[in-house]
Amino acid sequence: MMSHDVAMDLSTAFTAKFGVRHPIALAPMGGSAGGALAAAVSRAGGFGMLGGGGGDPEWLAREVPAVAGTGKPWGIGFLTWAIDVAAVECALSHGPGAVMLSFGDPSPYTERVRQAGVPLILQVTDLDEARRAVDLGADVIVAQGTEGGGHGALRGRSTLPFVPTVVDLVAPTPVLAAGGIADGRGVAAALVLGAAGALIGTRFQATTEALVDPAVRKALLEARGQDTERSTLLDIARDSPWPATYSARTLGHPYLDRWRGREDELAADAQARRDYQEDVARGAIPALPVWAGEAVDLITDLPSAEDLVRGMATEACDALARAGRR
Amino acid sequence: MMSHDVAMDLSTAFTAKFGVRHPIALAPMGGSAGGALAAAVSRAGGFGMLGGGGGDPEWLAREVPAVAGTGKPWGIGFLTWAIDVAAVECALSHGPGAVMLSFGDPSPYTERVRQAGVPLILQVTDLDEARRAVDLGADVIVAQGTEGGGHGALRGRSTLPFVPTVVDLVAPTPVLAAGGIADGRGVAAALVLGAAGALIGTRFQATTEALVDPAVRKALLEARGQDTERSTLLDIARDSPWPATYSARTLGHPYLDRWRGREDELAADAQARRDYQEDVARGAIPALPVWAGEAVDLITDLPSAEDLVRGMATEACDALARAGRR
Repeated sequence: MMSHDVAMDLSTAFTAKFGVRHPIALAPMGGSAGGALAAAVSRAGGFGMLGGGGGDPEWLAREVPAVAGTGKPWGIGFLTWAIDVAAVECALSHGPGAVMLSFGDPSPYTERVRQAGVPLILQVTDLDEARRAVDLGADVIVAQGTEGGGHGALRGRSTLPFVPTVVDLVAPTPVLAAGGIADGRGVAAALVLGAAGALIGTRFQATTEALVDPAVRKALLEARGQDTERSTLLDIARDSPWPATYSARTLGHPYLDRWRGREDELAADAQARRDYQEDVARGAIPALPVWAGEAVDLITDLPSAEDLVRGMATEACDALARAGRR
Repeated sequence: MMSHDVAMDLSTAFTAKFGVRHPIALAPMGGSAGGALAAAVSRAGGFGMLGGGGGDPEWLAREVPAVAGTGKPWGIGFLTWAIDVAAVECALSHGPGAVMLSFGDPSPYTERVRQAGVPLILQVTDLDEARRAVDLGADVIVAQGTEGGGHGALRGRSTLPFVPTVVDLVAPTPVLAAGGIADGRGVAAALVLGAAGALIGTRFQATTEALVDPAVRKALLEARGQDTERSTLLDIARDSPWPATYSARTLGHPYLDRWRGREDELAADAQARRDYQEDVARGAIPALPVWAGEAVDLITDLPSAEDLVRGMATEACDALARAGRR
């Protein structure tokens, strides 16, 4: 029977390929995008992706059942620089609807994903990476702008001009816009820029299902975009294994104020890095930086992710209808 | 008689207030947005604004007639930090449809503009400025993102998340989105983000009517967004009177490569700044930096500004229709 839904149809090449209702994907944020959050997004008609990080098989085994149990499409995302083939094999063994690779050279893994018949999503931060993603057979390319929260290119591009440029370059490969999107207006903007959907991170951390400390949710609710800053300092301070070619956008932090502009000095100062660990141990600073994008200004509540996805889809339709009334 | 135009209607609070057909405004780029360019934009149904810079009365007297002669709405923009009351009086004497003030404290001039009954447009780069613009009675607020070409805030915001935040903050004052917009998809994005239109700069420099050296047009056509860089260095090198609280996004430049990260050193090195002047004199570097936004990737031709405005309006309608089909 045909649907007689008269609501606006936001179907795109992405929704068609992945069998989802809304052009909204959960960014696979390492650790915080767990089974409950991915399940909520998928259940609401979006595309939930687990944040597989470096590919810890125990974490995946624990988080997969919640989202796989929805019977809805879902995926797994990894940090490319942090994984090995075994991690990809492990992910594939769980039967995801997509594997997404971000940050680093994906070429050692792409063929394996394609052989398994699983859609491959590659995230890119510049045009060279976008071109390469096409060559590697990406089914979907995520164009990430520098306003996004968490890690990204050291010298990144802004989402608004970057997305249409990538769309033109990689056509007809579908593109998801990432970075700076936290409501339905941003989803609508992604679509009119030519993207097939939006990949959203920070906004989903401020939901009841996110695997984050309640203090993080509260910080995101109170923060302003101008308080966020992209820097390598906190990775250096915490002896993070992230390659130096990536920086991360976080909320303000005492170590940013103390060391801004003196990255090399901090990297050479083992005592300062021990101080950081001690500050963490005695609770003077949080265990992890609060990764957050510029769009935190738009976070004004802490809904369930299910309500959030549905609300964003409705708001995107409203924004398109308002802008394009005939 | 009623119009029976079946095309999509992009009318907004901005088009209604200014009596223009398309929600597209020419950024009043100092020097390059002259009478011919502003006239072409206004003739095509956009809102042409002269780039009045620091308020040179002779430049205005020379450029006003072309745009005033169109019989269409048009405006004049100034650099707030560079003008005095006499400049505003001079502008008002030409009978513009709006006065736009950017960069600096507009409070010494806003009451005079309002007294004249001329719509006041204030450009803002952060939320404090946006709040202040409302208090000062702005009729339209331009929210400028850091991906824009030329000058802007030292630590700017990205257009995609900044615009909806400003829209929410200043409602019901109409907002124009600026920075990173160079085609109809970007115009459509501005509208769905809640803006009442787009203010566009760099894209209009690559038109036949712009007051720029042909070499600049060619450079914009060939440049890539990743070649642009926001910096204070070139203002320091050329002894520019721009306040140090602003940086400018330009194409790549030998002095950026030579001095990047050593701004204070360059400021203290009078000989280096004389070298810059000598390099200009002997043609080793261009007389002016090429101001350009990240959206230069989207500039692939050198049309007339009239064709450009009409093409962008059509493309914006197409983008909205494609994204929001029912």
